[in-house]
Amino acid sequence: MKPFSLLLPALLLTTSLPASAQSSVPETPAARQARETAPQLFAYTQDVLFGDVWKREELAPRDRSLVTLSSLLANGQSAQMTSHINLALDNGVEPSEIIGLITHLAFYTGWPNGMSAVGVARNVFTERGIDPEQYHPASEELLPVDEAFEAQRAATVEENVAPIAPELARYTDEVLFADLWRRPDLAPRDRSLITMAALIARGQLDQVPFHLNRAMDSGLTQTQAVEAVTHLAFYAGWPRAMSALPVLQSVFTERT
Amino acid sequence: MKPFSLLLPALLLTTSLPASAQSSVPETPAARQARETAPQLFAYTQDVLFGDVWKREELAPRDRSLVTLSSLLANGQSAQMTSHINLALDNGVEPSEIIGLITHLAFYTGWPNGMSAVGVARNVFTERGIDPEQYHPASEELLPVDEAFEAQRAATVEENVAPIAPELARYTDEVLFADLWRRPDLAPRDRSLITMAALIARGQLDQVPFHLNRAMDSGLTQTQAVEAVTHLAFYAGWPRAMSALPVLQSVFTERT
Amino acid sequence: MKPFSLLLPALLLTTSLPASAQSSVPETPAARQARETAPQLFAYTQDVLFGDVWKREELAPRDRSLVTLSSLLANGQSAQMTSHINLALDNGVEPSEIIGLITHLAFYTGWPNGMSAVGVARNVFTERGIDPEQYHPASEELLPVDEAFEAQRAATVEENVAPIAPELARYTDEVLFADLWRRPDLAPRDRSLITMAALIARGQLDQVPFHLNRAMDSGLTQTQAVEAVTHLAFYAGWPRAMSALPVLQSVFTERT
Repeated sequence: MKPFSLLLPALLLTTSLPASAQSSVPETPAARQARETAPQLFAYTQDVLFGDVWKREELAPRDRSLVTLSSLLANGQSAQMTSHINLALDNGVEPSEIIGLITHLAFYTGWPNGMSAVGVARNVFTERGIDPEQYHPASEELLPVDEAFEAQRAATVEENVAPIAPELARYTDEVLFADLWRRPDLAPRDRSLITMAALIARGQLDQVPFHLNRAMDSGLTQTQAVEAVTHLAFYAGWPRAMSALPVLQSVFTERT
Repeated sequence: MKPFSLLLPALLLTTSLPASAQSSVPETPAARQARETAPQLFAYTQDVLFGDVWKREELAPRDRSLVTLSSLLANGQSAQMTSHINLALDNGVEPSEIIGLITHLAFYTGWPNGMSAVGVARNVFTERGIDPEQYHPASEELLPVDEAFEAQRAATVEENVAPIAPELARYTDEVLFADLWRRPDLAPRDRSLITMAALIARGQLDQVPFHLNRAMDSGLTQTQAVEAVTHLAFYAGWPRAMSALPVLQSVFTERT
Repeated sequence: MKPFSLLLPALLLTTSLPASAQSSVPETPAARQARETAPQLFAYTQDVLFGDVWKREELAPRDRSLVTLSSLLANGQSAQMTSHINLALDNGVEPSEIIGLITHLAFYTGWPNGMSAVGVARNVFTERGIDPEQYHPASEELLPVDEAFEAQRAATVEENVAPIAPELARYTDEVLFADLWRRPDLAPRDRSLITMAALIARGQLDQVPFHLNRAMDSGLTQTQAVEAVTHLAFYAGWPRAMSALPVLQSVFTERT
């Protein structure tokens, strides 16, 4: 493959092409500003991020949107959330999944990030004519418990959390794992993927092995996990991705 | 106690109850949006966060407000600060303490977070008719120095900071510990509590043992410290709280 | 030197001085709010931050602006960016360098931070009558490669990144090091300085030794590096600076 370093100077010229030729970058006010004010950043956005990264088949556009939204929410970046919720819907993420993601990550990145995202999602849904009944879960029935996994998880909390913080252990058991994780609005594999993405995006690696293992138990492949981190390099910054790699490596090694 | 997992589906129905029955969640625009757009997140907010966590007696509402404001400021979450400054005032935090908290955490989480919070506090004070003279400290007299503690602290800075960064050591000694920490607008115990809360909320654990020890020397109990971390699980995200527990545990062990 | 603890109470009185006597603090709406609402924070801002830190000769005002902008961008603090882009221009940072910094840190702190900063820069440039042709790079010619350094760097990526994340290794080699780092809009020493500052401001220390070494290879002195961290204590918070010191120390020791 031709290296980007040779492609980029030439592609800079494309900033004067008609919009139709640049369809890969969402036509947002921010993108238009970048094209004029920071043409090199726009060229990277167009040629590398949307022209290459988002199109790589190792991870579906739908999964890339889940990872991107997780990163934005994890770091409280509301300004970019409108365009990425729109892109997520275009990529096939269901409105109920977006609300499920926000609710889930309120627990994993803090309530304020969740509450801010609700307002953005609501505005996008209203603009697209999506009514609440379209994204409220049809069923409240919780997914069944994987008894073997749950016994092991609860034992770990009982041993490590309960002796020092019994109430935090109780919330973890009764609200997170007996309720939130069993909600039907997100598939277990997606719930684990967004948790892992949010943790890496925040540079909080301690719990990544637990959630990466659970994601892979639910069907996330090694290739998809690596591609999610590659995608996060662009959305959460190179160092967050680089620091996560040894953690992935050790999980992969342990599983083989 | 009945597990939350059994309570929650039923309580979801309460989203159609009159507002008076839901008085525990502050009636903010964000809360109203959440009730309609993300009813499950609203149910958790109502039933778990405000219906249970905020009411637990292990930490006073006043202290919970100090911890919450510290977390919001530490992570630059201005959007939620208006409602939580109002709640803090309702919970008995003095306007002068809020300004003291902002000033203190400007040093511990960076000037920009402090300056942004000043603008929010000012608007809340104006709306509630609180004049500057009501929150400017009556006295500028600095609290006395704990000579034994200060000698030990200064020696640590002299040994670890001064040889590499003498000016940073000087600011630490002369601005932070000879001045900021001695300001009369916050009680020493509260000053240590908000520092610890801000550090945990930012995932910056290196200095937690120092500040937790100091908080406990000033009267913070082990139960209150644990409950502050439990509270932070909701406001800064579960992983921040979980990662802080071993640090608390080691401090508690060393003190016994 | 007279300790700040003696200076500060007296200087508090200066908050009623005419603006001309306080020229060191940029006259922004935030500063005016702080003067009235949080007079002690304003006093620290005036007497310590702008009256002392920014004036210290160990680091030029231009470099301090680069460090400050890096910290603001790294933590997504757009609210303070308008006044600091203005201050950077006043301190001699070129518009093309500001756009170069934003583009560079999009990779190192994530695209959303970069895109948000573009909008702020554009508004400041428009207000000051700076046209795009004034800040678009005159030349697209990439800086020459330091073959010995590049061979070593590429070998490290080949060994540590490529086996687990081959595409991330490819982007690192072809986009970051064959292209971004060779862009002529920022001097290599400044590119390394802003990378180091952004990493410290985000509490992401793993890659600091690599970038600090590279900065010093490009001319950053030990004194300047330490002063950058001292400056960051104020903009990213004391704990971020304190945690970075041992990393600096070990790099300095290895280089001697």
